[in-house]
Amino acid sequence: MAQGADRERDGRLVVFDGGEAGHARSGRPGKVWLVGAGPGDPELLTLKAARVLAAADVVVHDRLIPEAILALASRGARLIYVGKRKSHHSVPQDGINELLVALAGQGFQVVRLKGGDPFVFGRGGEEMLACRAAGVACEVVPGVSAALAASASSHAPLTHRGLAQAVTFVTGHAAPNGEEGWAEPELDWISLARPNHTVVVYMGLSTAPVIAARLTEAGRSAQTPVLLVENASRADERRVLTVLAGLPEAAARLSGPAILIIGEVAALAEAQGLVDTAAEVEWKRA
Amino acid sequence: MAQGADRERDGRLVVFDGGEAGHARSGRPGKVWLVGAGPGDPELLTLKAARVLAAADVVVHDRLIPEAILALASRGARLIYVGKRKSHHSVPQDGINELLVALAGQGFQVVRLKGGDPFVFGRGGEEMLACRAAGVACEVVPGVSAALAASASSHAPLTHRGLAQAVTFVTGHAAPNGEEGWAEPELDWISLARPNHTVVVYMGLSTAPVIAARLTEAGRSAQTPVLLVENASRADERRVLTVLAGLPEAAARLSGPAILIIGEVAALAEAQGLVDTAAEVEWKRA
Repeated sequence: MAQGADRERDGRLVVFDGGEAGHARSGRPGKVWLVGAGPGDPELLTLKAARVLAAADVVVHDRLIPEAILALASRGARLIYVGKRKSHHSVPQDGINELLVALAGQGFQVVRLKGGDPFVFGRGGEEMLACRAAGVACEVVPGVSAALAASASSHAPLTHRGLAQAVTFVTGHAAPNGEEGWAEPELDWISLARPNHTVVVYMGLSTAPVIAARLTEAGRSAQTPVLLVENASRADERRVLTVLAGLPEAAARLSGPAILIIGEVAALAEAQGLVDTAAEVEWKRA
Repeated sequence: MAQGADRERDGRLVVFDGGEAGHARSGRPGKVWLVGAGPGDPELLTLKAARVLAAADVVVHDRLIPEAILALASRGARLIYVGKRKSHHSVPQDGINELLVALAGQGFQVVRLKGGDPFVFGRGGEEMLACRAAGVACEVVPGVSAALAASASSHAPLTHRGLAQAVTFVTGHAAPNGEEGWAEPELDWISLARPNHTVVVYMGLSTAPVIAARLTEAGRSAQTPVLLVENASRADERRVLTVLAGLPEAAARLSGPAILIIGEVAALAEAQGLVDTAAEVEWKRA
């Protein structure tokens, strides 16, 4: 097992003694697997992700990976927790990159387990490039991205004839703006405001008021349906249907990781299990 | 088994005697599962898709589902082939909708197996609405959409800090235009031409020349990298890296189902295994 790479679950920085490169374990060269863990439901892992996870020497993960998925790793695997998003207790991205490269350099089969898909807002590209620069073998296992799970469970298709010929995925996660707090997400509001086009916002809860305002200013109707899906595919999934005008109010009622599905398709969402908002009732009456 | 719903593999219309609604088999009500089969590699099925497929009474599928995936159905399951895309021998969408509803009405557990994800260019929305209108229970199992598989296998992330803050999925599949052939895909070229934005085109091979021309006219640089991925995740996957100016030539060299990844991220694609085009060499020299 990796020197100093300890089973850390409390958000503290992982201490890692990255010396002794080589083929520490079996003579096989080390390798990094960037694995999409899917949206949260362990059954939405791919067969390949489950196989790779069960064979890993080390699993590097963050807080969005449920325990039931981590439990699929072999009993001998070392689990390394690299922290919460948006938290000061997280390992910085550069540190994660170095950790992956160092572990593979010691000959370990390293699974970097990422929520959803590694290459959709997962910063997997940075980890892949770090491996490439270090000459470390890297394989990417795609996963079910959260938007697809939110769409499936709510019965709101992302594309649909006559309603949405295209779908755009953006992140509402704003860049840190020094001591002034968080900047606005830099998005192409004019393009996103076009009709017949679904806009999916990842991590859009905290910036929902800005998103609603900018889209409306850019010409998207304030009556455009919006579906919010919190904890898509998990047992505690919650869905709220509203319209753009009601988005700030609806977002304030949720707190977990959430997907916003903005566009005419959102109105197709299954009524059963939906949490109504005042705005939604207005919209239904209109 | 369903009356007249025969194991048809040759593209002929399925003859279905849709009478006798009821709970034909086990007393359980029938149900339709819209299941994403993923991009083609059977290992990229989700655990849930594999479970549901193994338990199905009837599996309704089209030509893009590999034999190795169909083999995961139970031996007693009836497989119904509903034809090729773009083919006169296909069952029309309305016929598929009716078939699903009728089979569920007879009490069967029906898996409608769709390539990729059911709600990303899969017309799953239409099948879901047909079930809803008929009062048939319907559950959607998301899948790994082909774009995610193409991105993973080529190491070209769909989003990447500094290169792509958003990704838009469109289809290059043009609508039939009466006897005059195929219309151009109706896309918002101005929006798609913006930089720092990945555009993924599903089924874009035949309309690649139009896509390249319209994007360039709308202001996207002719030197924008483009990655073509044919048969993503399958044993016969092929990848070509080019630029927008070289897209028509590159597309003419491929023939299978293909994904186009257009944008700066395409340049991150792994060089190993790539098929070079003349345009790509020019671009590398530039």
